[in-house]
Amino acid sequence: MPAPSIKNRNLGEYISGYVDGEGCFSVSFSKRSKFIVGWETKPSFSVSQNYDRAEILFHMQRRFKCGFMRRDFSDRTLKYEVRRLDDLINKIIPHFKRYPLLSAKHKDFQVFCRICFKMMNGKHKNLKGLKEVIDLAFTMNASGRRRYSKKDILNFTNTRMKI
Amino acid sequence: MPAPSIKNRNLGEYISGYVDGEGCFSVSFSKRSKFIVGWETKPSFSVSQNYDRAEILFHMQRRFKCGFMRRDFSDRTLKYEVRRLDDLINKIIPHFKRYPLLSAKHKDFQVFCRICFKMMNGKHKNLKGLKEVIDLAFTMNASGRRRYSKKDILNFTNTRMKI
Repeated sequence: MPAPSIKNRNLGEYISGYVDGEGCFSVSFSKRSKFIVGWETKPSFSVSQNYDRAEILFHMQRRFKCGFMRRDFSDRTLKYEVRRLDDLINKIIPHFKRYPLLSAKHKDFQVFCRICFKMMNGKHKNLKGLKEVIDLAFTMNASGRRRYSKKDILNFTNTRMKI
Repeated sequence: MPAPSIKNRNLGEYISGYVDGEGCFSVSFSKRSKFIVGWETKPSFSVSQNYDRAEILFHMQRRFKCGFMRRDFSDRTLKYEVRRLDDLINKIIPHFKRYPLLSAKHKDFQVFCRICFKMMNGKHKNLKGLKEVIDLAFTMNASGRRRYSKKDILNFTNTRMKI
């Protein structure tokens, strides 16, 4: 039985609908002792699906012309992820501005945009800007787990900046 | 911050994209001693989401003009569900024929259609037809849990029919 054709389909709307359910906009922070502020800011757009239903992830990758696939062997899922700031700003964000999410996830997307544009302007590379980015990031994905608390991150930056 | 407008949106594609991720077409069976074959065949189209992101479920209910909402207090989700055969055949199935799912879930949908049309013709009300419906239903949602095995159902019908 052939897969349904995507010819004459509005794949933009379809992808936004799919992402509204399964997608995630997130911003995480990793300790990087060589960075002036001590932390790397890592925005990410990702969508996961079981291997056997992953066609839509490949449709997305072809459409967005960026990002990579990663297998998660623990739960037998495939994840499509875009991390490169340039791709997020020029390919991912314009898509979701043209076809906005309809759930409350739209708010996460708006915060995500603000962070990406701050990063484009290098704001996250000084303590004041990083603090703004952290404050914004911690309003997103309220139910998500984080490795470091806001306090952990801010304490570490403060210590380093004082040295 | 106002929610994005759905004016000028292709909500049909959006809904299919959303359902491709979060939706479920299923057919379950309940013991009903008063039914001639001893079992009720219950097709269902459902979509679940956390309370705080449930807008899209209400968009669906308004668009499809059928189905009901049910709260699941155990995991804080809201479920939109359509069970009425007439609604499935006249409202839900036509939507997904016009805007087909793009993942392997499309195969479940096709089996679901066959079962609904068999039911419309009353096939599930005799043992031969019920067996066909059961065989089809057990090819769907391979990873889903079922209360009764195929053998349980068939054994029970056989016993009753022999009485």
